[in-house]
Amino acid sequence: MKKYTIGLIRVLTIQDEELLNRHGKIIEKAFPELKVISRCIENQPKGIYDEKTEEEAKPKILRLVKEFESDGVDAIIISCAADPAVEEARKLVSIPVIGAGSAASALALAYGRKIGVLNLTEETPRVIKEILGKNLVAEDHPNEVTNTLDLMTDWGREEAIRAAKRLKEKGTEVIVLGCTGMSTIMIAPILEEEVGISVIDPVIAAGAVALHSLRRVEAWGDLNENKG
Amino acid sequence: MKKYTIGLIRVLTIQDEELLNRHGKIIEKAFPELKVISRCIENQPKGIYDEKTEEEAKPKILRLVKEFESDGVDAIIISCAADPAVEEARKLVSIPVIGAGSAASALALAYGRKIGVLNLTEETPRVIKEILGKNLVAEDHPNEVTNTLDLMTDWGREEAIRAAKRLKEKGTEVIVLGCTGMSTIMIAPILEEEVGISVIDPVIAAGAVALHSLRRVEAWGDLNENKG
Repeated sequence: MKKYTIGLIRVLTIQDEELLNRHGKIIEKAFPELKVISRCIENQPKGIYDEKTEEEAKPKILRLVKEFESDGVDAIIISCAADPAVEEARKLVSIPVIGAGSAASALALAYGRKIGVLNLTEETPRVIKEILGKNLVAEDHPNEVTNTLDLMTDWGREEAIRAAKRLKEKGTEVIVLGCTGMSTIMIAPILEEEVGISVIDPVIAAGAVALHSLRRVEAWGDLNENKG
Repeated sequence: MKKYTIGLIRVLTIQDEELLNRHGKIIEKAFPELKVISRCIENQPKGIYDEKTEEEAKPKILRLVKEFESDGVDAIIISCAADPAVEEARKLVSIPVIGAGSAASALALAYGRKIGVLNLTEETPRVIKEILGKNLVAEDHPNEVTNTLDLMTDWGREEAIRAAKRLKEKGTEVIVLGCTGMSTIMIAPILEEEVGISVIDPVIAAGAVALHSLRRVEAWGDLNENKG
């Protein structure tokens, strides 16, 4: 089976190799059809946390997008639930560009029609709100958690489970994680087991969309060959 | 690589084995990870074309859903863009149930935010309208085409291309095919080549979501084993 190469962009500066590659490893586990190369933007160790830092990050993301295209990757994932620079990148290159936020919220709609978003701290990312529209029934976040490190503690995890349960009580059928930091600590299966509804991980969702974007094109070629 | 078994339900009565299996073959070509078993509902050679025939089909679809679950398939696809009985089926069984209409419209949102729907003849299916919400920017259909046989003629294909071009002129960035009959005749790649924007085939989209639904669960198990 053919392997595809995916360029994955982390929107914060990460020195640690293992951490840099974490999202890529998660995708490769779920989709062994994909080989993921990870790169990160420079000089933003705190990543994107407001409009100013998003604007600062955009040209750096777009530079990596061009770089990945020159290197010949098959598709690009921007591994952030806010989809920073995704629309701009699509205009810049001809290969598929997938945002983790749009991928997760889009895929959630294939599983149910009452979607809840579990955020880390802040607001639900705008792209997720716009994709879900009226299908967004609830938004919540773990109390007193300020970063993913908090979520790795026992109390942080308990708060996340409580927040997910609140979403379910408000009628949520499918939960979207509103931050790829929650992918890093692999909290989706824990929440799913504790709460009993599907939890869509944005990094795995991006991998699924990447595979669809490449296979959907190849499938027809094969079928037409078989006919001829 | 592990193969998953998918039960696929055609919502019209088909005697011809090759035709019955066509959607399944398309999915297997795109996703060799999936083995597809196709079954169809009985006594509805014209399928679903209004509310009455949809109500008539629902209990038959649900019977096949139960049957597939007893047979031990990993997931079920209801291969119709109107998602008939999908919500009811989800309450009935514990394996993933995927509708071609919700899968296609959901996935389209992972590629762009201005979605157009190309229908065969009728209205855009309600489930597609509800998933796309404000992201639905245009709907159209080929003039004078009344069934998929028309679409296979030269004039029918020309009309389909014209309709797709009209969608693009209205600002559509991604086209969703509003009928799985258009998958049967494999028109997506033709439209994509002629019009120059992505065309989401509902049958292939359902296959992609089916694979995501199974892999997303397995991925975590593997990762946790590696940690332990």
